[in-house]
Amino acid sequence: MTIAPPNFYPPFNILRLSHVELGVTDLQASRAFYEGILGLRVSAADDEALYLRGMEERVHHSLILRKTPQPVALSLGFKVFADADLDRAAEWFASKGLPVEWVTRSQCQRCLRTQDPFGVPLEFYATMQRLPPTHQEFAAYRGVRPLRIDHCNVFCPDVDAAYAFYNEMGFRLTEYTQDDESGRFWAVWMHRKGGVHDIAFTNGRGPRLHHLAYWVSNPLVIIDLLDLMATSGYLANIERGPGRHGISNAFFLYVLDPDGHRIETYCSDYQTVDPDLEPIRWDLKDPRRQTLWGAPAPRSWFEQGVPFEGVTPVDPVLAGQPIVAP
Amino acid sequence: MTIAPPNFYPPFNILRLSHVELGVTDLQASRAFYEGILGLRVSAADDEALYLRGMEERVHHSLILRKTPQPVALSLGFKVFADADLDRAAEWFASKGLPVEWVTRSQCQRCLRTQDPFGVPLEFYATMQRLPPTHQEFAAYRGVRPLRIDHCNVFCPDVDAAYAFYNEMGFRLTEYTQDDESGRFWAVWMHRKGGVHDIAFTNGRGPRLHHLAYWVSNPLVIIDLLDLMATSGYLANIERGPGRHGISNAFFLYVLDPDGHRIETYCSDYQTVDPDLEPIRWDLKDPRRQTLWGAPAPRSWFEQGVPFEGVTPVDPVLAGQPIVAP
Amino acid sequence: MTIAPPNFYPPFNILRLSHVELGVTDLQASRAFYEGILGLRVSAADDEALYLRGMEERVHHSLILRKTPQPVALSLGFKVFADADLDRAAEWFASKGLPVEWVTRSQCQRCLRTQDPFGVPLEFYATMQRLPPTHQEFAAYRGVRPLRIDHCNVFCPDVDAAYAFYNEMGFRLTEYTQDDESGRFWAVWMHRKGGVHDIAFTNGRGPRLHHLAYWVSNPLVIIDLLDLMATSGYLANIERGPGRHGISNAFFLYVLDPDGHRIETYCSDYQTVDPDLEPIRWDLKDPRRQTLWGAPAPRSWFEQGVPFEGVTPVDPVLAGQPIVAP
Amino acid sequence: MTIAPPNFYPPFNILRLSHVELGVTDLQASRAFYEGILGLRVSAADDEALYLRGMEERVHHSLILRKTPQPVALSLGFKVFADADLDRAAEWFASKGLPVEWVTRSQCQRCLRTQDPFGVPLEFYATMQRLPPTHQEFAAYRGVRPLRIDHCNVFCPDVDAAYAFYNEMGFRLTEYTQDDESGRFWAVWMHRKGGVHDIAFTNGRGPRLHHLAYWVSNPLVIIDLLDLMATSGYLANIERGPGRHGISNAFFLYVLDPDGHRIETYCSDYQTVDPDLEPIRWDLKDPRRQTLWGAPAPRSWFEQGVPFEGVTPVDPVLAGQPIVAP
Repeated sequence: MTIAPPNFYPPFNILRLSHVELGVTDLQASRAFYEGILGLRVSAADDEALYLRGMEERVHHSLILRKTPQPVALSLGFKVFADADLDRAAEWFASKGLPVEWVTRSQCQRCLRTQDPFGVPLEFYATMQRLPPTHQEFAAYRGVRPLRIDHCNVFCPDVDAAYAFYNEMGFRLTEYTQDDESGRFWAVWMHRKGGVHDIAFTNGRGPRLHHLAYWVSNPLVIIDLLDLMATSGYLANIERGPGRHGISNAFFLYVLDPDGHRIETYCSDYQTVDPDLEPIRWDLKDPRRQTLWGAPAPRSWFEQGVPFEGVTPVDPVLAGQPIVAP
Repeated sequence: MTIAPPNFYPPFNILRLSHVELGVTDLQASRAFYEGILGLRVSAADDEALYLRGMEERVHHSLILRKTPQPVALSLGFKVFADADLDRAAEWFASKGLPVEWVTRSQCQRCLRTQDPFGVPLEFYATMQRLPPTHQEFAAYRGVRPLRIDHCNVFCPDVDAAYAFYNEMGFRLTEYTQDDESGRFWAVWMHRKGGVHDIAFTNGRGPRLHHLAYWVSNPLVIIDLLDLMATSGYLANIERGPGRHGISNAFFLYVLDPDGHRIETYCSDYQTVDPDLEPIRWDLKDPRRQTLWGAPAPRSWFEQGVPFEGVTPVDPVLAGQPIVAP
Repeated sequence: MTIAPPNFYPPFNILRLSHVELGVTDLQASRAFYEGILGLRVSAADDEALYLRGMEERVHHSLILRKTPQPVALSLGFKVFADADLDRAAEWFASKGLPVEWVTRSQCQRCLRTQDPFGVPLEFYATMQRLPPTHQEFAAYRGVRPLRIDHCNVFCPDVDAAYAFYNEMGFRLTEYTQDDESGRFWAVWMHRKGGVHDIAFTNGRGPRLHHLAYWVSNPLVIIDLLDLMATSGYLANIERGPGRHGISNAFFLYVLDPDGHRIETYCSDYQTVDPDLEPIRWDLKDPRRQTLWGAPAPRSWFEQGVPFEGVTPVDPVLAGQPIVAP
Repeated sequence: MTIAPPNFYPPFNILRLSHVELGVTDLQASRAFYEGILGLRVSAADDEALYLRGMEERVHHSLILRKTPQPVALSLGFKVFADADLDRAAEWFASKGLPVEWVTRSQCQRCLRTQDPFGVPLEFYATMQRLPPTHQEFAAYRGVRPLRIDHCNVFCPDVDAAYAFYNEMGFRLTEYTQDDESGRFWAVWMHRKGGVHDIAFTNGRGPRLHHLAYWVSNPLVIIDLLDLMATSGYLANIERGPGRHGISNAFFLYVLDPDGHRIETYCSDYQTVDPDLEPIRWDLKDPRRQTLWGAPAPRSWFEQGVPFEGVTPVDPVLAGQPIVAP
């Protein structure tokens, strides 16, 4: 696919990825991991769900963990600029033939629930309950000292189609890989907030959630997390890293929560607010695109993802896997 | 002054502070400092001027050093979203009775030159010559490894008036200090790009440029810069820091270039894209607002600034200095 | 004084500074600081005393806090190579006309208590109770993550005499300052363990303990400590730093405990095991000797120290203070 | 093998591993790597050899690269405490039936060349030419900013025998792995200087040099080296890491020079000057012994080593490889 012009005047104004809702099988085990190891702060907790946020977030939560029989991804949440954007969003999704629904979310004034063409459940809101700043409560910093949600990454059976849909919604492409033969996108990184991405799509059986990422301050807190996990009973939950991505230039680590949900800790990508920022193309044969230093990702990283509730993944248009690991 | 509602639908769309132009007396000495010590990259150089950029910037320059008889600040440059924003800007400034002029800037397609009510020269453009990415040319990283311009800070004789003007232009307030007695703002931090500020105004004889700041990756590169300057003949150019600001939460260092222009190296403030982000008020009596760890700033930091060319600074409305240093 | 040849075959074999005993007025307040803020581990505690160690120390303690009516320094403890060294030490101190005494220390097999010519109480032992390694119990790391005791620093009224005495004991000089006029030492840094110092002496009313220092892994944990103290009620306990010493090249921070005992957190000096390592001389007029970056120390840092129990400080031989601060 | 008591009164006093001499096939390519990428300083260079040192070393060199037809290890160099130790060393090695020879080394006063029972060429000296300190010439810091040589690691066909021999020479055991069935050592880490090791022996076809290591200040400079190598034509020379060793607790990276010599950059192990420090035993089945975070080493790391000149490696007593990588 050729790169389309960004849609500078999108149908409604999305600010950023705001939160993700995951289904987990054991809230207590999840809390031990997310609060005790990763270091997220608990905003609210009951028998059904746990609400968490990073140290600099003033919204009520950026992660909801809801008790479910199986691990599952429940929705991706986005904050829009103004209340009117919600109505415009509802209209736009309806015009695409996609289901729209106004749902009640106790911390949000109004919340629109819909889905993308692959069935990924999306929620939009303009106003979520605000909490006092905690970024200077240094005595409460724990684990990897997560500051804020950064992005999510979704396995997608047709990345060209996902790109076209999200581009129309106003997401802008920053980096990408492309299949040389077919010219189809293999993976795309797209943003709204001025970083490398709010969402990325990778070719693969999908839709499935590949990971969500928290922004941290620098590589040393990621090393701290590795030391902590390795000596606190979470050795097997370390999946990949640490390393620097070629794509995005970010320093990263991927870990798995007790249900196998993949969490990335991520720092030092770059600013992308210029609308004329040229997307960077990476060759699928360049091992540095994934890890600048050449280390291959483990097989699990290419294959494992979590389905969205009620959505059956399908095989991708592009077959094969550009796996460089042995 | 009470905080006004942000102007969410401003007369034209400014993206970010893009570049600053300074007058320097010795281009060779300046190049030794900015390229050899700070580590900025030279985009172009001739007998009149030096153009520099940070390692992740793809615009032609974020700093212009122009040979002048005296050290002076020449202009603040802002990138707008689209070409049409330039015309809207011209109209808006003209409607305020401020001079507007279309000027030729070799790297910009169109450039509007105007000024704010205090006489600060402002330049706006939509399209500047782009250069290839260099953020992964690690062999070229030097000094403090400056990544991108972040903000500038201006001494202003009437911060209330500056706040009102820039708020109308769409800048949003993130943090501030206020004089208890009069209720007037002492200093305001305002942004467009989603960080704590693109521009700050501090009460004082003005307008004068207080400093401009480059974003760096983490505190250790700032410590490297200190070690380097202290042992390379620039000991006397270290002015203040390192420290963490209470306001903005950023880790900082202030140094002086060979002409006395103040440069801040700055990292790890926070994301501010939410339009409902509540501004944080700091008490002028809290020493932590300047340095979270309590260390006072030296007298020079409160008093020295560089006038803008052709603009005579005037005394501030609010007298006195909240100097906490001995 | 001219530098004497090191005593390569000293009367007995001291390995390193092992521990310091301080008198504190409120054990609970001290524990809150040393355990809760600095992050030392408590080995034992009762109504009389608190025993602490760093994360990589396997001796029972490197710091004893004993309840006393006034803040006071109680003793400096050194580990010797072998049991026989204790007897040789006893003989040597006795030969100098200094009091020697075998004292009972519950964690040490044998303990010799004596004093240096200025009255500084010294304790020597060969074998102290060992504890299991904890350096990889990362879940227990707190505060500045102190790893091990590094050195202590003592105000001394006659640095030449201290140098001669400790040199004869086998301490080796690594760096020093000298009074230009008289040729007398102003300060000396002397080691046994292979770092820049186990003990330093500074000209001043003494003997008084100036500070003791813990080794930490890197500058960022020191920045963490600053952030923590500034926002946890210990702002006024931050005395000086962070900075890099010219002398020793170490990155440092000085903080005060609730009784005013000065603690340094310290990292990245250099290895000194070569017996032919040339001592480095620093000019008293070079501000970089104290802080490489030029920042002066506050007056308190030059003046405040804690007397040793029962020892009356006297004025120094060299008058005046090389204070570079305003 | 059971752990023997350390030899606290060894036949002669070795201070530390001082330098390593390697045979390289292309001095220019080696210089580009060691000076241009790693950042060692060149002390001397001619058509035959290149002499290098780290930033804090004041001896003439810690690495000699000599032009040879094939990559080969030429000798391990140790500094002894005093000149008389050289004569004692000559006597001791002769008493073991090992060849001793006084050789001329232009930078050393006297130099004894001998070998260990496996044929590893060893050189001992007391006095090497000294150079001025450069640890505060921060403008000269490059690459990984190597500070000093730390240790070397040798494949050995009989680790029990190596342990017994070096233990008698005064090296002290800090950590080890052991074959459960035979009770034989698999690998031992032994020191003289007060760190985790000056030399380690690993079961394998040998003797062959596995790697030599430079001490660096903190993990971030190792990350800098990775970024630099990956983008400067040395991607394929990155072999393993970054990671934290379980054994030694050090943060590490292994890279290969242009001839395949393995260099480790290493920081943050712990102090071992206490003679009663208990050696730490690691289970060969614990993946954390190699990388605390569980990542396996690549096959090359277990298999590749460089022979010592003129010494034919033999198969190890213990067969099999505890390779945990797939």
